[in-house]
Amino acid sequence: MKKHKVIFQPSGSRGEVEDGKTLLEAAQSLGVDIEGLCGNKKVCGKCKVRIEEGYFEKDNLESGMSHLSPIIEDEIKHIKPEDGPGIRLACTAEVHGDVKIFVPERSRAGKQVVRKAAKELSIALDPAVRKYNIDLAAPTLHDMTTGDYERVLKFLEEDYGLKGLTFDFVVLKSLQDVLRQGNWKATVTVWMDKEIIKVEPGFEERCYGLAVDIGTTTCVGYLSDLITGKVVNTESMMNPQVPYGEDVMSRITYAMTNDDGLDKMHRAIIDGLNEIIVKVVSEIREDGPDPGFAIDDLTIVFNTAMHHIFLGFNPIYIGRSPFIPAVQNSLDIKARDIGLKINPSAYIHVLPIEAGFVGADNVGVLIAEEQYKQDEMVLVIDIGTNGELLLGNRDKICSTSCATGPAFEGAQIKFGMRAAPGAIEVVQIDPETKEPKYKVIGKTDWHSHLKKVDAKGLCGSGIIEVVAEMFKAGIIDKSGRFAKDLDTPRVRKDVDGKPEYVLAWAEETSIGTDITITQGDVRALQLAKGALYAGAKLMMNKLGVSKLDRVVLAGAFGSHISTEASLTLGMFPDCPIDMVYAVGNAAGDGARMALLNKGKRVEANDKARWVEFIEIATDPTFEKEFMQAMHIPHMKDKFPNLKELLQKSGSKLEIKG
Amino acid sequence: MKKHKVIFQPSGSRGEVEDGKTLLEAAQSLGVDIEGLCGNKKVCGKCKVRIEEGYFEKDNLESGMSHLSPIIEDEIKHIKPEDGPGIRLACTAEVHGDVKIFVPERSRAGKQVVRKAAKELSIALDPAVRKYNIDLAAPTLHDMTTGDYERVLKFLEEDYGLKGLTFDFVVLKSLQDVLRQGNWKATVTVWMDKEIIKVEPGFEERCYGLAVDIGTTTCVGYLSDLITGKVVNTESMMNPQVPYGEDVMSRITYAMTNDDGLDKMHRAIIDGLNEIIVKVVSEIREDGPDPGFAIDDLTIVFNTAMHHIFLGFNPIYIGRSPFIPAVQNSLDIKARDIGLKINPSAYIHVLPIEAGFVGADNVGVLIAEEQYKQDEMVLVIDIGTNGELLLGNRDKICSTSCATGPAFEGAQIKFGMRAAPGAIEVVQIDPETKEPKYKVIGKTDWHSHLKKVDAKGLCGSGIIEVVAEMFKAGIIDKSGRFAKDLDTPRVRKDVDGKPEYVLAWAEETSIGTDITITQGDVRALQLAKGALYAGAKLMMNKLGVSKLDRVVLAGAFGSHISTEASLTLGMFPDCPIDMVYAVGNAAGDGARMALLNKGKRVEANDKARWVEFIEIATDPTFEKEFMQAMHIPHMKDKFPNLKELLQKSGSKLEIKG
Repeated sequence: MKKHKVIFQPSGSRGEVEDGKTLLEAAQSLGVDIEGLCGNKKVCGKCKVRIEEGYFEKDNLESGMSHLSPIIEDEIKHIKPEDGPGIRLACTAEVHGDVKIFVPERSRAGKQVVRKAAKELSIALDPAVRKYNIDLAAPTLHDMTTGDYERVLKFLEEDYGLKGLTFDFVVLKSLQDVLRQGNWKATVTVWMDKEIIKVEPGFEERCYGLAVDIGTTTCVGYLSDLITGKVVNTESMMNPQVPYGEDVMSRITYAMTNDDGLDKMHRAIIDGLNEIIVKVVSEIREDGPDPGFAIDDLTIVFNTAMHHIFLGFNPIYIGRSPFIPAVQNSLDIKARDIGLKINPSAYIHVLPIEAGFVGADNVGVLIAEEQYKQDEMVLVIDIGTNGELLLGNRDKICSTSCATGPAFEGAQIKFGMRAAPGAIEVVQIDPETKEPKYKVIGKTDWHSHLKKVDAKGLCGSGIIEVVAEMFKAGIIDKSGRFAKDLDTPRVRKDVDGKPEYVLAWAEETSIGTDITITQGDVRALQLAKGALYAGAKLMMNKLGVSKLDRVVLAGAFGSHISTEASLTLGMFPDCPIDMVYAVGNAAGDGARMALLNKGKRVEANDKARWVEFIEIATDPTFEKEFMQAMHIPHMKDKFPNLKELLQKSGSKLEIKG
Repeated sequence: MKKHKVIFQPSGSRGEVEDGKTLLEAAQSLGVDIEGLCGNKKVCGKCKVRIEEGYFEKDNLESGMSHLSPIIEDEIKHIKPEDGPGIRLACTAEVHGDVKIFVPERSRAGKQVVRKAAKELSIALDPAVRKYNIDLAAPTLHDMTTGDYERVLKFLEEDYGLKGLTFDFVVLKSLQDVLRQGNWKATVTVWMDKEIIKVEPGFEERCYGLAVDIGTTTCVGYLSDLITGKVVNTESMMNPQVPYGEDVMSRITYAMTNDDGLDKMHRAIIDGLNEIIVKVVSEIREDGPDPGFAIDDLTIVFNTAMHHIFLGFNPIYIGRSPFIPAVQNSLDIKARDIGLKINPSAYIHVLPIEAGFVGADNVGVLIAEEQYKQDEMVLVIDIGTNGELLLGNRDKICSTSCATGPAFEGAQIKFGMRAAPGAIEVVQIDPETKEPKYKVIGKTDWHSHLKKVDAKGLCGSGIIEVVAEMFKAGIIDKSGRFAKDLDTPRVRKDVDGKPEYVLAWAEETSIGTDITITQGDVRALQLAKGALYAGAKLMMNKLGVSKLDRVVLAGAFGSHISTEASLTLGMFPDCPIDMVYAVGNAAGDGARMALLNKGKRVEANDKARWVEFIEIATDPTFEKEFMQAMHIPHMKDKFPNLKELLQKSGSKLEIKG
């Protein structure tokens, strides 16, 4: 096999790679980290590299012979004129000769900050699985008519009052050897006071479960100690289905248009979860042939499409009218039947879904926030790739789903990036000078010309902050248009003649280029927040509610989001600012609660059926509400609380109050 | 690949085979049937062939170079001097040059007569699985909050009163497509009014189950129509575990002494049953990718060792003191968990076992014969490779197990063979002349010198008859010894100087040799029947019973056994002859009853616990009882009923009455 020399700059890593390998494979083999959000499927465009030598052979400059495979259409759509010459996607370009490559800062991978970190939950411990120590008398000839099975059940009944238990078949196969190995002392793991799902030799106290939240873009697993209730370890990863489609509808389409589409995406998520399982248990045990065996319970939430694909159900029927899901109730599925590598006899508890588009993740939010126990009128906004809303109180709760697009997650934003070191997440803009100050993830200080903070882009919460600040500073007006004739070099025209705001000058960044907020970025955010607001408004109309007592912001970046910025933008109708809470990943909290307390599973089924789903897309008033809600904070609605807040902060901005 | 010419005589079949193939493989490829009880594992010695040409190359006569692979030790132990020269086992000898082979009549395979044929059962139909037709309204947008799952359950509850059903996960995966395929008409198969184990498009009425009886030597499957209760098809085969040991203890030993022994035997029986499944369903459907899918329920009985190996449980603990089984209760195991290729969502119902050595097969006998509903004192004898006894009535029932050995099945008998065409099964001997007449399977007439019946050997029932007749004719005495100085050529000395009785002269047979009953054969039968009798006697002592009201003979050849011959031999204590019944395969009947009526499953669990197991081997009186019971019919016990029977038939035999 022919080999070629490859050099990566600026790290200087070099080595030989086989002919036909991609630059990304070459980089991985040489220990060079290149960003690849999409799992090397040519869809994210984040792995751009610049070819410094070897793009064309000197002798073949005219014929265009390159040391790399020809550029393909999938690449071309990601490469912009401003990227400059010699740009390729590392996942696509194949090495066919010696090359020297420069990896721009923006394409260098940083470890994602887990924005779905687990918070402490206050919930009574009553898990679905429990361990019981048993200590049998060694059998004698008198026991010849009594099997090991029967003697174990007798002990559990007499000592623990557990009646009518059954044995999982796989466990039963090991029973004889395990009992003798432990010299008739053993630990029995019981699921739902019904079934024995593990027998271990000797006395074992530790017991673990995994709560899983599968988002369209991110998956996270919380390993929980079922004795203490504490989270022992958290692992997250990009959803490995991203290459098959960035959003729910494109994945459903993929399943409709490819014979093995469902199967591929199903395998991808199962394999991905198995990776999370291996990583997350490293905290509690050594590697072994079946590291996940220590996990005896698993709860899982996701939206309806992810739910169907995870379970291997055909998702096409939820993608077209009348949008009928396969199942709404919660399910308990043997781990071995679905191929998750935890204890093969354990059950996967799939939380129920509410309606076609409102999934188990929203049920997770519901049982975590428990609006149904409250008198106040609460709006819960769960922000992910889709936005889900819950509105109500103990009398009635409505739910709906809004197509917000991925702007809140930093996608479709020019300098958007995931929440990793270098991402700007806090922004303030001086209304007089229009000069910003900002903080990036990984540094505690505000940026200043004295202290370079190596900004790289903006994560979701940074985008919300900067647009709210631009509005407060008068850089954009309530319609989202840039103000004209501002006396600042920060506002300028981009190559297409459209206005943009420079948040960070090139010398403050680690990417060597100005970080800007474009008119397009502002529009993307307006569309996203407009969809949320309109959804909330329609639900308020439905319930006859004119004002909100409380707003709960949930979702991946929920606990990092600025409540002031959200209110200022008009992501939701007006509300006292001290009654707006960011709660973090409430869907994940719900999964953890169902893991720690089996009563929550019953509650989830009951409440999921009780919540009324409202289809907003087909509501005749939606279009008008959506147009008005695109304004910042809103075209017509009054915001007395926001007005008061801005006045207190000395802002001169005029808001209807 | 080198090829060699092979000719088989007397059929004359000829052809070329690849170098290194065994003679058996060659025979199979040329359509020549050669007997192979053991599945080509060199243990049964039934595939003997004579090499007519090519044993030695002419040029290499002295050096011993042969056209066949060298003879090995496994073969040598099966080849007797009286077999003559040039004998090899076809399963072992490999072809390395041209050969001409003679297949002796004894080695030609005949199709076994299924002695486990199903009889009509009178039992109320109430199977564990039932099919329900459903006819849903096509969903509309109003159903968006109701899944397919929920709408199916609602229909089943409203139309059939079935509440709280669950879906098997595999079924649930197919639900959406199946409902749409049948245009919202479907057939749902429900197990135990609990779980949905199949959904088929459209309306389907047919419903099938399989009742399986796994004996140490023979396996049989009865395909039953669960709507009519009729047996639709029966398939049987040698237990494919035979190569690992002919009896229970040798298989347990095999598992103890080979790391993968359990696994191999487990795979063998699962694969074997899957073969039976494919064959048995050929009656009801075309071949397809999953022919067994039509089977929605399966009940199974076996002895405890076969039970453990089938389930993958380690059998070593039932092979050594204190003989503790893994489980005694019945089990319901998903077909896919054990790898049986019926509907993967269906359950395998494993009937309970009674005690260490008294298995689910005996429970099958118990629920088929229902002694527990009777006032009379009934002895049930289930004869297989082991003998199992049940004694009692509605007040109390005892069970035990006797090591009879395989003599009743024709093994360890010089001319013993399985019940196939050519096997002698009925015998009468004239007490004066000592001349016999007999019938063979496949022919209706008695043999005579005018009508050659091509006898080949004796099957189990024939052996019992001939020994009983020899006793009645005074050829053997009550101790089993041959009478001396009988004036008949039929009684003579064999090569070792031991007496034997010629039942058939060579010219009456198809094997070209006299068929004889040897002193060893008589002894083997005495040991077997003595064990049964002693077992029955100990149980009678235990229950304080002095006489039997009824005797039921069950087992593989149960319905073909002569009740007179059994009583004459003293296989059991004296009983009125019209109260001795042969019922056939009662264990299989029990499996079929549990298949047709789920109440029988509950009854089986209850009664298996209620029956008292008696360990006879450790009973201090066993040895003495056994020695006395070896006599024909018994050393000391009185047989008034037998005495009357013999007197009526004009026999001069003196029996204690």
